[in-house]
Amino acid sequence: MGKIRIVESIREMQSYCEALRRAGKKISFVPTMGYFHEGHLSLMKEACKQADCVVVSIYVNPTQFGPKEDFSKYPRDFERDREMAQSVGVDVIFFPSNQEMYPETYQTYVDVEQVTKNLCGMSRPGHFRGVTTICCKLFNIVKPHTAIFGKKDFQQLAAIKRMVKDLNMDLEIIGMPTFREPDGLAMSSRNVYLSKEERSSALALVGALKLAQKLYAEGERKADVMIQQAESLIKSAPFTEIDYIKICDTSTLEDVNEIKQEAVMALAVKVGKTRLIDNSVLGEELKA
Amino acid sequence: MGKIRIVESIREMQSYCEALRRAGKKISFVPTMGYFHEGHLSLMKEACKQADCVVVSIYVNPTQFGPKEDFSKYPRDFERDREMAQSVGVDVIFFPSNQEMYPETYQTYVDVEQVTKNLCGMSRPGHFRGVTTICCKLFNIVKPHTAIFGKKDFQQLAAIKRMVKDLNMDLEIIGMPTFREPDGLAMSSRNVYLSKEERSSALALVGALKLAQKLYAEGERKADVMIQQAESLIKSAPFTEIDYIKICDTSTLEDVNEIKQEAVMALAVKVGKTRLIDNSVLGEELKA
Repeated sequence: MGKIRIVESIREMQSYCEALRRAGKKISFVPTMGYFHEGHLSLMKEACKQADCVVVSIYVNPTQFGPKEDFSKYPRDFERDREMAQSVGVDVIFFPSNQEMYPETYQTYVDVEQVTKNLCGMSRPGHFRGVTTICCKLFNIVKPHTAIFGKKDFQQLAAIKRMVKDLNMDLEIIGMPTFREPDGLAMSSRNVYLSKEERSSALALVGALKLAQKLYAEGERKADVMIQQAESLIKSAPFTEIDYIKICDTSTLEDVNEIKQEAVMALAVKVGKTRLIDNSVLGEELKA
Repeated sequence: MGKIRIVESIREMQSYCEALRRAGKKISFVPTMGYFHEGHLSLMKEACKQADCVVVSIYVNPTQFGPKEDFSKYPRDFERDREMAQSVGVDVIFFPSNQEMYPETYQTYVDVEQVTKNLCGMSRPGHFRGVTTICCKLFNIVKPHTAIFGKKDFQQLAAIKRMVKDLNMDLEIIGMPTFREPDGLAMSSRNVYLSKEERSSALALVGALKLAQKLYAEGERKADVMIQQAESLIKSAPFTEIDYIKICDTSTLEDVNEIKQEAVMALAVKVGKTRLIDNSVLGEELKA
């Protein structure tokens, strides 16, 4: 296994990837904000299966954080990330500065309209604009054939797929199953914020999804019934404050009353001061 | 000279251009709305000098027209355009349908913020959003090394340059001088709308720019003085209605009071029912 290459400059990354493409090599890309967990590594391992060259970006993107959100305290540990990425066979880490990504005169944004309206779009105005903008930039820099995202960020994945299709970007977006702790908690870099008691309460998120799956399997199709029961379960756990619990059409992400087509239960809950999200497509196995 | 190739499908255009890039060929691109005049041809000739393969798109882009603008009556003549493009050595015409470019679920837009605020951005809300979005799409479809635009659409050129830089698109945007009729009128597909009398009045636009250049050469640096004189000249021509006459910084496109750095006089004037624009960077030769 060769030593992993670290690239900080956009120009260098572009010419490196352009040369790979010219040589007929396949590039797979995993955009991240760093502070890796097993979920990130599972995306990188998938990328390694698919491509000749795997590029991972580590960039805590300021434009996707609101003014009161955790941008400055978001966990960072580059040396640890570098070792973990190297251990699974990643070839290149793209690690740009804010100055490199958003110079002073920066003024361009990509908006995906409908699928970003509901869910986190309501509680985090501007968040998805930041996400789609940075992904557009990163795709133009890394020029990948495939880019791999986790399904834990269901709405993010939907927005990025929509952007790629609408703007005719010539790459394939791949969504991978949410990676969970042995007890079912969805892996997230933000889980490090949780105290021991909060960590225990956080299990209510996956608990609510399991309950919804059970009701669905028993034939329940009314969204409000499933949401009410999920709500009761989460409220019974200490330190929790519900942002939303919704059941949405998986392609439009609009609310559904009566489940007739593929639908997802998505939820966002504050546990102590930490906002966590999770989701599960109804009828799909929830591996937890 | 081989027969020009007509491509209507995005997929076909992308794989054709991807193959060219892989083979190390240079692609130059001229995006147009068709109904070619000598100005368009001058851009195509420049493209032929630069590249191994020249692609011209012909697409009257609905998203850059306002609801009361001339989208449906914008002049179109594909057969004539095809012959003209072939005569100057263009290799491929990309000629997509609206359904191909904006399918029903379309919902993604690219916004360049500051440089699109002033000038035409004030009188044509949404226009530049349509322009940058379609150019972003076309660049992803044609994958050119260079794309060539006329400087007559000064603000459009500024917005596209800004988008390319901000979104890290790996291509070079080239602006070419405005092509003019022998009497100085800037060439535009919309000139066909003008009656004989209006055609004569339309000369007031270039007349106002020449007057500003003369004042500038004589040492005048106050924008309001130059704008007032330009305004008087245009108002003295029949059928004219001024939308704006402004002097702006060439990089930010913000209004300038005292000209200290590079500045452009830009104007938009309705002549009869036809809205015409023109501009000239102060101190640069106005070839008319």
